[in-house]
Amino acid sequence: MKLQVYLSGEIHSGWREELINEAERQLLPVDFLAPVLNHDASDNVGVEILGAEESNFWKDHKAAKINAIRIKNSIEKADVVVVKFGDKYKQWNAAFDAGYAAALGKSYIVVHSKEFTHALKEVDAQAMAVAENIEQVLKILEYITLPE
Amino acid sequence: MKLQVYLSGEIHSGWREELINEAERQLLPVDFLAPVLNHDASDNVGVEILGAEESNFWKDHKAAKINAIRIKNSIEKADVVVVKFGDKYKQWNAAFDAGYAAALGKSYIVVHSKEFTHALKEVDAQAMAVAENIEQVLKILEYITLPE
Amino acid sequence: MKLQVYLSGEIHSGWREELINEAERQLLPVDFLAPVLNHDASDNVGVEILGAEESNFWKDHKAAKINAIRIKNSIEKADVVVVKFGDKYKQWNAAFDAGYAAALGKSYIVVHSKEFTHALKEVDAQAMAVAENIEQVLKILEYITLPE
Amino acid sequence: MKLQVYLSGEIHSGWREELINEAERQLLPVDFLAPVLNHDASDNVGVEILGAEESNFWKDHKAAKINAIRIKNSIEKADVVVVKFGDKYKQWNAAFDAGYAAALGKSYIVVHSKEFTHALKEVDAQAMAVAENIEQVLKILEYITLPE
Amino acid sequence: MKLQVYLSGEIHSGWREELINEAERQLLPVDFLAPVLNHDASDNVGVEILGAEESNFWKDHKAAKINAIRIKNSIEKADVVVVKFGDKYKQWNAAFDAGYAAALGKSYIVVHSKEFTHALKEVDAQAMAVAENIEQVLKILEYITLPE
Amino acid sequence: MKLQVYLSGEIHSGWREELINEAERQLLPVDFLAPVLNHDASDNVGVEILGAEESNFWKDHKAAKINAIRIKNSIEKADVVVVKFGDKYKQWNAAFDAGYAAALGKSYIVVHSKEFTHALKEVDAQAMAVAENIEQVLKILEYITLPE
Amino acid sequence: MKLQVYLSGEIHSGWREELINEAERQLLPVDFLAPVLNHDASDNVGVEILGAEESNFWKDHKAAKINAIRIKNSIEKADVVVVKFGDKYKQWNAAFDAGYAAALGKSYIVVHSKEFTHALKEVDAQAMAVAENIEQVLKILEYITLPE
Amino acid sequence: MKLQVYLSGEIHSGWREELINEAERQLLPVDFLAPVLNHDASDNVGVEILGAEESNFWKDHKAAKINAIRIKNSIEKADVVVVKFGDKYKQWNAAFDAGYAAALGKSYIVVHSKEFTHALKEVDAQAMAVAENIEQVLKILEYITLPE
Repeated sequence: MKLQVYLSGEIHSGWREELINEAERQLLPVDFLAPVLNHDASDNVGVEILGAEESNFWKDHKAAKINAIRIKNSIEKADVVVVKFGDKYKQWNAAFDAGYAAALGKSYIVVHSKEFTHALKEVDAQAMAVAENIEQVLKILEYITLPE
Repeated sequence: MKLQVYLSGEIHSGWREELINEAERQLLPVDFLAPVLNHDASDNVGVEILGAEESNFWKDHKAAKINAIRIKNSIEKADVVVVKFGDKYKQWNAAFDAGYAAALGKSYIVVHSKEFTHALKEVDAQAMAVAENIEQVLKILEYITLPE
Repeated sequence: MKLQVYLSGEIHSGWREELINEAERQLLPVDFLAPVLNHDASDNVGVEILGAEESNFWKDHKAAKINAIRIKNSIEKADVVVVKFGDKYKQWNAAFDAGYAAALGKSYIVVHSKEFTHALKEVDAQAMAVAENIEQVLKILEYITLPE
Repeated sequence: MKLQVYLSGEIHSGWREELINEAERQLLPVDFLAPVLNHDASDNVGVEILGAEESNFWKDHKAAKINAIRIKNSIEKADVVVVKFGDKYKQWNAAFDAGYAAALGKSYIVVHSKEFTHALKEVDAQAMAVAENIEQVLKILEYITLPE
Repeated sequence: MKLQVYLSGEIHSGWREELINEAERQLLPVDFLAPVLNHDASDNVGVEILGAEESNFWKDHKAAKINAIRIKNSIEKADVVVVKFGDKYKQWNAAFDAGYAAALGKSYIVVHSKEFTHALKEVDAQAMAVAENIEQVLKILEYITLPE
Repeated sequence: MKLQVYLSGEIHSGWREELINEAERQLLPVDFLAPVLNHDASDNVGVEILGAEESNFWKDHKAAKINAIRIKNSIEKADVVVVKFGDKYKQWNAAFDAGYAAALGKSYIVVHSKEFTHALKEVDAQAMAVAENIEQVLKILEYITLPE
Repeated sequence: MKLQVYLSGEIHSGWREELINEAERQLLPVDFLAPVLNHDASDNVGVEILGAEESNFWKDHKAAKINAIRIKNSIEKADVVVVKFGDKYKQWNAAFDAGYAAALGKSYIVVHSKEFTHALKEVDAQAMAVAENIEQVLKILEYITLPE
Repeated sequence: MKLQVYLSGEIHSGWREELINEAERQLLPVDFLAPVLNHDASDNVGVEILGAEESNFWKDHKAAKINAIRIKNSIEKADVVVVKFGDKYKQWNAAFDAGYAAALGKSYIVVHSKEFTHALKEVDAQAMAVAENIEQVLKILEYITLPE
């Protein structure tokens, strides 16, 4: 069984690249999906393509909707969603994606450091695994794709 | 049409009471649903009922799951979800509820101050309305329940 | 069996009132749902409640989304949707509602004059009945709610 | 992620060809789906295949249903729906397709000139992007299919 | 638990009346739904309400669609569907209703005489019970609604 | 768009072979699915594999359920269902399949001679096309798979 | 919010009565649903109503299907499912109900003694709470129905 | 039609290997899915990857959830589920998988010896076939994949 895995959350570190590279090195039967990771492009895509806005709200709104086309499709196609919470920023989009996955009945894995245990308890509660680092995620993907 | 409205998010202020009281005063055809708002009870319900845990993770886990029985049922029964982000704490559960509502195709209204516009852009993007205060939410509920 | 019937489409004539009054006079077991019919209120609700916009696009956008909370809920609760196309205006929202109802597997009845037969053929094709006037709709509602 | 994109709406201009050609030139990972574009064939397919009708209504009806087999399948298979409103005709089928896509939770992009902003506000309100021309649609498809 | 029971199939005998009367006499917590049973009204409703047709096909078509509004709603609301095959006529609508119920995951009970065992094997295969008479159906309804 | 087409109904004539051969000759982008057509094998598969039964009812029952594994999967995978009613037998399984397809929102095409117009009106009412012969079905498949 | 709670599993002890009585004493806003608890009636209902069978397999089969009408309806209507595993018998039907509830996205609570921890780990894994006795279930129901 | 078949249940015998080998030898168009079959790895995967636990409950819980990622995905992708009950152990996970498959409307085949007929009656009741050995399952797979 080949798995589609969507990588949601933290975009300021290289965790996706690390995970993807290692999975490829191990020849895991996994295809990875991800949001657009170029932060500037992602923030500005609405006004860049559809025209300038005076208010920041609508600038953000148009960008977030275009990004949502990709994100919604990715979560819906995914067999497993990995949601990583980093140490900085509010990261409400990561929690939003987790809720979205949960409502669709998708299995998701949360990754965060111990300090967020209490704040993320609702997100962790419906997860299939709560990891602290990428190595653990990799091992889970390796395990659940062991040959029949 | 009588509406079921679930009030998600911030639990450290009296916004739900304010909204419910005013809606009742105006005789709006709205029933409100809410999570358990007693913070201590909510945090400890897992170990209180199902037995002590040594680690905080499992203590939180058991509590969050029991609360999830109520929250999941409430969102699924709701016609409209209101998600309020306050000024404090991570509030990832609020974003999780918004994502959950979005995936179910539920209309939701977000309430937050302007300073969170950028951080909440993904949550706002799929909302039916983005308000800054409870009065606006009340007016929306009043408007959408005008008699046929 | 009591039916919920959503009345979509034309808002510049009194067809809903006529239908509702006659159904009540006949004591039909039907509850009617409708969008907000005050045209000015409906057009301005976004800026009235959520604050002014410089562009007409966002003014309309905010209004249409608030109205959509009511419309989406109404169609989803409805057992039957009646979609009336009048003689004026583009009425794309009526066709949108018909498509929305079709995708949900809801039975809908279209009402329009003969001159629109060709232009509305895709809307008519998935309807359960194509009527030319309100009397016919009333007779259909009367017929399908005959006592068991 | 390869995307399936259904191109709904205006059939009297060459916008689909323009979009498809340019997407192919850029090697975008997109497959396009479209209705039958031969206007005469589309109007007459019912009576051509299934036998003559005396009334225009049934002639149109039989044709619209056969076309609906293709259109329904296309929207249901699509990851993204593009709905273009041209300057002529009622184009109720385009709005119908948008409503159909919305009810299925499909992301859709609307294309229309500024003059239709008010008339299309309900269709725009649930869209993920509102474009004015095909170049913008192309840029959105290019952006949302950027390699992971 | 109060059950909604839709009574599909044979319309040339008084089996529905017999079942409903006996269920009422026993005060079973069951509400019955049924199609329109006036055969002439049912056959002619299309042309009676929506205007004459030259061909029998369209006369039947318009009638069958109006009846389908009631039948579809009834099956979708039903907790249990009873499908009775009598000794006369093709009764393809009864088998159609059974297939419709099966695809929705509804429990259905088939009633037919032994001689149809082979011809109805596909319909029986997905039923929750295959009865030979109305008394058996009544006993099943009585049994499954025994007080908790 | 390549279509999956399930061929339901009459099994005593060679209509499937005729349709499949002609579609292949025309290189239509269509894959055909069908039930097991060996009548004896189909009737006896239950007792052949799972052991003898004393009563015909259970013999038929076991066979019909094994066949249903294939039929249910085929209809669920199909983009279009063709349901042919021949001149002989009760063919309740064909009507059952049509109802099953209808409830899943699948487009289906009915094929029958004119004499069955009245008896099949409920089945025809929810069909996307009502044909009288296989040539018409072939032309519909050809038309709806015209290249984009 | 009033909750519908289905009580699945062990039928050889009085746990349901105990739970229902105590919930009524506390005036909890909960309606309870349950299978038929008369063991003999439940085992024999198939042959009692639908006629004798020579083999135990078909006797059990007919009974289990009639009971399934009630059980399926109950789980589908339930907001919460309680599944109790007692100390005796295989109780595969309890595990089946839990899997059924899980696939529908229903919140369920498992009740079993500690000795079954390992054997029930897959059932527990998707539960919202794992209790050891009825008092704990009662406290959970009391907690999740605290007034808004 | 190529089928995906998930093999659930008994893990202490070589029945999966036997079935897969024979299916491959016969070139059946079937892909098999299975849980992780290394019993020790399966029991310990939670603590091996995500860290030690003091209690057996949480050790089992973490393992069962990781395994559930694979099992849930497999059942959801499967066209047919085979559930084998062996002679040892409680095997509640097998019954759970059967219930899960039933609620999703998946066809499933149960395999067990005659002695479990009464205890498994609820599981058998919603199955498409009840076999006693692997040869019968193989014959069913062979039969339902006969070429069109």
